Amino acid sequence: MERYDIAIVGSGPAGLEAAINGKIRNKNIIVFGNKDFSAKLIKAPLVNNYLGFYNVSGMELKTKFEEHIKHLAIDIVNERINSIYAMGEYFTLMVNEKMYEAKTIILATGVEYTKPINGEEEFLGRGVGYCATCDAPLYKGKTVAIVSYNKHFEEEANFVSELAQKLYYVPLYEGEYKLREGIEVIKDKPLKIEGEDRVTKLILSKQETQADGVFILKDSVPPSQLVPGLEIENGHIKVDREMKTNIEGCFAAGDCIGKPYQYIKAAGEGLVAALNAVAYLDSKGI
Amino acid sequence: MERYDIAIVGSGPAGLEAAINGKIRNKNIIVFGNKDFSAKLIKAPLVNNYLGFYNVSGMELKTKFEEHIKHLAIDIVNERINSIYAMGEYFTLMVNEKMYEAKTIILATGVEYTKPINGEEEFLGRGVGYCATCDAPLYKGKTVAIVSYNKHFEEEANFVSELAQKLYYVPLYEGEYKLREGIEVIKDKPLKIEGEDRVTKLILSKQETQADGVFILKDSVPPSQLVPGLEIENGHIKVDREMKTNIEGCFAAGDCIGKPYQYIKAAGEGLVAALNAVAYLDSKGI
Repeated sequence: MERYDIAIVGSGPAGLEAAINGKIRNKNIIVFGNKDFSAKLIKAPLVNNYLGFYNVSGMELKTKFEEHIKHLAIDIVNERINSIYAMGEYFTLMVNEKMYEAKTIILATGVEYTKPINGEEEFLGRGVGYCATCDAPLYKGKTVAIVSYNKHFEEEANFVSELAQKLYYVPLYEGEYKLREGIEVIKDKPLKIEGEDRVTKLILSKQETQADGVFILKDSVPPSQLVPGLEIENGHIKVDREMKTNIEGCFAAGDCIGKPYQYIKAAGEGLVAALNAVAYLDSKGI
Repeated sequence: MERYDIAIVGSGPAGLEAAINGKIRNKNIIVFGNKDFSAKLIKAPLVNNYLGFYNVSGMELKTKFEEHIKHLAIDIVNERINSIYAMGEYFTLMVNEKMYEAKTIILATGVEYTKPINGEEEFLGRGVGYCATCDAPLYKGKTVAIVSYNKHFEEEANFVSELAQKLYYVPLYEGEYKLREGIEVIKDKPLKIEGEDRVTKLILSKQETQADGVFILKDSVPPSQLVPGLEIENGHIKVDREMKTNIEGCFAAGDCIGKPYQYIKAAGEGLVAALNAVAYLDSKGI
């Protein structure tokens, strides 16, 4: 398997700036993200405080960033990393059934503005999960509820429905649904996950459903969940001024390491993370 | 006297980005620097790692920055601050004989690549100084040597020569000199400053001269000299992740707080410093 020098998780300004610097320093990089780069960026109506650009929309800025990475032949791999394991000499990144390897990691996952559902953290690992395809085999013949923040998770729901006896799909977005027959769509607000040892039901504002498992599918997995053992402080990944986390070879940058949530702050940190990842690789001679 | 909310010292990417954010947040700001913004920036042949711009020269980037600050009606005050004193509720900034006042300070002074002359630090305050016009009265009727890194210090030399009995001018740059009659130009490399209690002479590579005072005129005054009591660590201003220095109300950003010396890293820190200066002003209700 190809082992990358630097795997960058996230394609907002921090991830892109990290990618640019890794590439310029001749490292073999891979960037996981999506074609819009950052949902937050493309929705920004007006950006005036990114030095060099003024009176621009987030979309215009995104176009500039896109031209830049294309010029350097940087591609974004449109996959969501579910978990990252430190293997000693390298890291393994899991994307559902697929795996990637990298010598260093830069986490640039942004922040989720969605609050956890009542009970989500309490039952994490005891019926609550963030990767439906990973855990689907556990729910063969059982009842599963999927709370989904994005249309592209419908495919994951379809996959799970092949195994589960019953699947409830709770979409937290507007639009048409492309779901397999038998999946029951509930258009309602999830309020609480309940159970005893393990999850038993999902309470919504107008109804409740029995559930052996509840999957919450968001575009970014919480960092503590993504990288087991990662140190978190006040809800953000803890780093030093070199953007080092508590795990050797693992760096972080951007909104996920703390406020202010601003593009150029994130980009500056992406640069620092990348140059320190390069220095780490060089110092280890790997 | 007008008391500014934020005084920004330095007009490189860190200072400019701080200014933009201070202005957007409706603060009364003043920026000290020069019309080229940053000598390092305008000399950069090619910049490829400032997200959003690629294949640009430092001069092109400077032009973009200039358009940006003009759009926000930010002016650069072309003066070199010699010293900054914390007065309790506010700061006083000295420019030769002039004074400014500000409630908060953002230091974005960059780094000097010039090494100190042998003896420079040892005799600082005992014959060695960084502001010739400030201290000129002390050298009335005496012999002074000025080591100058920039043409625009010739004016300062001319002023000092009106008071000093003898003035040696050691230019460390090429070009024509516009100096008053009587000033003796020495085109030679200064090696060492010598003395006992106080400076007595300047040793150059091919000669030596007697001197009661030696002024070293660089574009940026060393931060520890600029702000008495400022904590320095490994040659850089010590800050936390909020860009706070050890002096309340005094923030720092950019190359002066540490490597990597990169534009977007500096700009990101400028933003963080400005937003924290704004938060400080708001929290104090000043």
